[in-house]
Amino acid sequence: MFFKVKTAEEVLEILKDFSPLGEETVSLEDSINRVLSQKIVSQEDLPEFPRSSMDGYAVRARDTFGATEGLPASLELAGEILIGRTPEISVGPGKAVRIPTGGMIPEGADAVVMVEYSHPLDDKTIEISHAVSPLENVINTGDDFRKGVTIFEKGACLRPQDLGLLAGLGISGVSIYKRARVAIIPTGDEIVPIDQRPMPGQVRDINSYTLTAFCRQAGAIPINLGLCKDNFATLREMVKRGLDIADTLWISGGSSIGTRDITVKVLESFDDVEILVHGISISPGKPTIIARIGSKAVFGLPGHAASALVVAEIFLTPFLSRLSGIINAFEDTHVYMDAELTQNIESASGRDDYIRVRLEKRDGRLFAEPIFGKSGLISTLVEAHSLLKIDRNTEGLYKGQAVKVMLFKGYS
Amino acid sequence: MFFKVKTAEEVLEILKDFSPLGEETVSLEDSINRVLSQKIVSQEDLPEFPRSSMDGYAVRARDTFGATEGLPASLELAGEILIGRTPEISVGPGKAVRIPTGGMIPEGADAVVMVEYSHPLDDKTIEISHAVSPLENVINTGDDFRKGVTIFEKGACLRPQDLGLLAGLGISGVSIYKRARVAIIPTGDEIVPIDQRPMPGQVRDINSYTLTAFCRQAGAIPINLGLCKDNFATLREMVKRGLDIADTLWISGGSSIGTRDITVKVLESFDDVEILVHGISISPGKPTIIARIGSKAVFGLPGHAASALVVAEIFLTPFLSRLSGIINAFEDTHVYMDAELTQNIESASGRDDYIRVRLEKRDGRLFAEPIFGKSGLISTLVEAHSLLKIDRNTEGLYKGQAVKVMLFKGYS
Repeated sequence: MFFKVKTAEEVLEILKDFSPLGEETVSLEDSINRVLSQKIVSQEDLPEFPRSSMDGYAVRARDTFGATEGLPASLELAGEILIGRTPEISVGPGKAVRIPTGGMIPEGADAVVMVEYSHPLDDKTIEISHAVSPLENVINTGDDFRKGVTIFEKGACLRPQDLGLLAGLGISGVSIYKRARVAIIPTGDEIVPIDQRPMPGQVRDINSYTLTAFCRQAGAIPINLGLCKDNFATLREMVKRGLDIADTLWISGGSSIGTRDITVKVLESFDDVEILVHGISISPGKPTIIARIGSKAVFGLPGHAASALVVAEIFLTPFLSRLSGIINAFEDTHVYMDAELTQNIESASGRDDYIRVRLEKRDGRLFAEPIFGKSGLISTLVEAHSLLKIDRNTEGLYKGQAVKVMLFKGYS
Repeated sequence: MFFKVKTAEEVLEILKDFSPLGEETVSLEDSINRVLSQKIVSQEDLPEFPRSSMDGYAVRARDTFGATEGLPASLELAGEILIGRTPEISVGPGKAVRIPTGGMIPEGADAVVMVEYSHPLDDKTIEISHAVSPLENVINTGDDFRKGVTIFEKGACLRPQDLGLLAGLGISGVSIYKRARVAIIPTGDEIVPIDQRPMPGQVRDINSYTLTAFCRQAGAIPINLGLCKDNFATLREMVKRGLDIADTLWISGGSSIGTRDITVKVLESFDDVEILVHGISISPGKPTIIARIGSKAVFGLPGHAASALVVAEIFLTPFLSRLSGIINAFEDTHVYMDAELTQNIESASGRDDYIRVRLEKRDGRLFAEPIFGKSGLISTLVEAHSLLKIDRNTEGLYKGQAVKVMLFKGYS
């Protein structure tokens, strides 16, 4: 049955064959958390003119050399710089000009004395009690970025400060990779919509909600195609529709051999199909199918909601990063925390175990308490804060052992 | 001037006086990352009936006791359970019923033998080569959650798995706290819109973009009121409008003494106003003003984009968590990583320094490289991955020292 069971590493390698999506242009304000599809080169210096970083006096630094509280330098007050205006005065030897934070440094001046180190003697004269060196308290032309410099590489994910820099350079629209459209198909004869009272033997649709939410957190666009019966023709029709409108398909359900067989048969009925993975040596999540139809990846996820979410966390996170064009999409960017294990865990060798773990801080120490329970239970994930991976070459971990736990992506 | 300079801890204490916003009801699919305004009690058992967690045979466990590969137990095949249906057969002594993963356990059976441990002898008989104990491979009624149990406390932030649990219980709408509406007012006579070519002395509007993006990442709703000149009447009108339509106001700009004075005067001109903070002993971010007008918090943020973002990271993150009703909103939920410092850092005592830090992995070790530069430079934050706090009682850190760096919230 599991003629193509792969290790997690093999699966990640296979997923690298899929390419980032196409590009689109969005306005700067809508580009937060989006990924650049083209590098950005600064078209001008930032800032374009020297500015004061303090309230004070624009001076020639050399006029202050040696000034102390006991022996202040006396300078002639030659005027005032207004914020937002081009200075109409210049600063000659022995002169000072009042300047606000952000004001443009006038011709002749090369430093700013903070107002705290100045003392007006009369309307025309100030005393300076502190020497400044050239460029002190000055943000010089191009200090942020010089014209012609690459400020972001293709594949960079934009953060608030990055939008700030682009705004500063007057870039109001950016070329980014499209967000992945994910068609979600929950299957199973036993599944009923959540607003329907299940009969004995039936259960409500859980995976539509977990997978939709997972997509949204990852910045993808979920398209829920609705419940699908375990039936070749119905599922084929839905997969076909999904392939038409989405960039990838996530079929959930079918953990039983019979329904898994239907999924595989449906996928195999398409042209240009390749079953890439039929089982992954991880727990939970073993009964996962991955196929390529044309250029699109189709995932057959386990029916158990907790298993499907673990698979999503480990494989769909980097896969969506890949589609979105992020550099190093397959580097593990999960955050890990150090914790002490509260009890022994046995682990079967030959597969990676992802133990769900509750974190608890006591006396400044962080403890990881494994949550045991069948993978069919959603409660194991609801009560968990993180996952603890036990490598397939490790047979178990001991109480008190120092472990690194993986926080769920996008939470915390 | 800084008659009310507070420590960071004092500021956080002050922010605790603001209350969570009102509640609203949203559909389950829209509740991801939202915060519950009421606790949720399970109204039914989940699951409501015992289910098989494997493909196999429903049996009475005792009929398999002692079964091994050498000495299998022989059972009479009494029929098959269909997924999603109420079983019409029961399992008597010596009988077995075929059952798929997720199928309802029939009357009389108390365990499931995996198909891997079964061997059909003829149409009517199977051999079982592995003993099962009662409830083995069975998800029992209420195994996930029992009716009447509190599954989520008020203040819980909903994750994908949490939506899954609520779906499983048939809860299609939830009561949550409203998202904070944040009115953003960028001020400064020198600021021009980003699509406008600045004259010498003018700079483009950066803070609208950084603060809007910061709000979005935090799940709040930014309302950009547009550029405001450094003028009492204009700013007062904008603040008035902001108070009408938003839950909190963030005024950016005014790092120079003159414009800061205007901001304070405008705030003081409202009824029921209290200036809570006038300066915080952190760097960057010292010239921060916080006022309460009525029940709303008004922040006067530094004009330097990098300073404003550091203040946002440290104070507005917990403040927005507080408005959104999160339990323990003031617990620091930033993720910290251990790194080695690449050079000495001096730090003035009496204030908390937030050094911007670039992280670099070399030979499996994580290095933190401080980015020095004036707080007026946005590049210091653009090049940074994280912040390194140097406590006000610490005078500096040494090259090679082990430090904990704070990842930006919501990135990584």
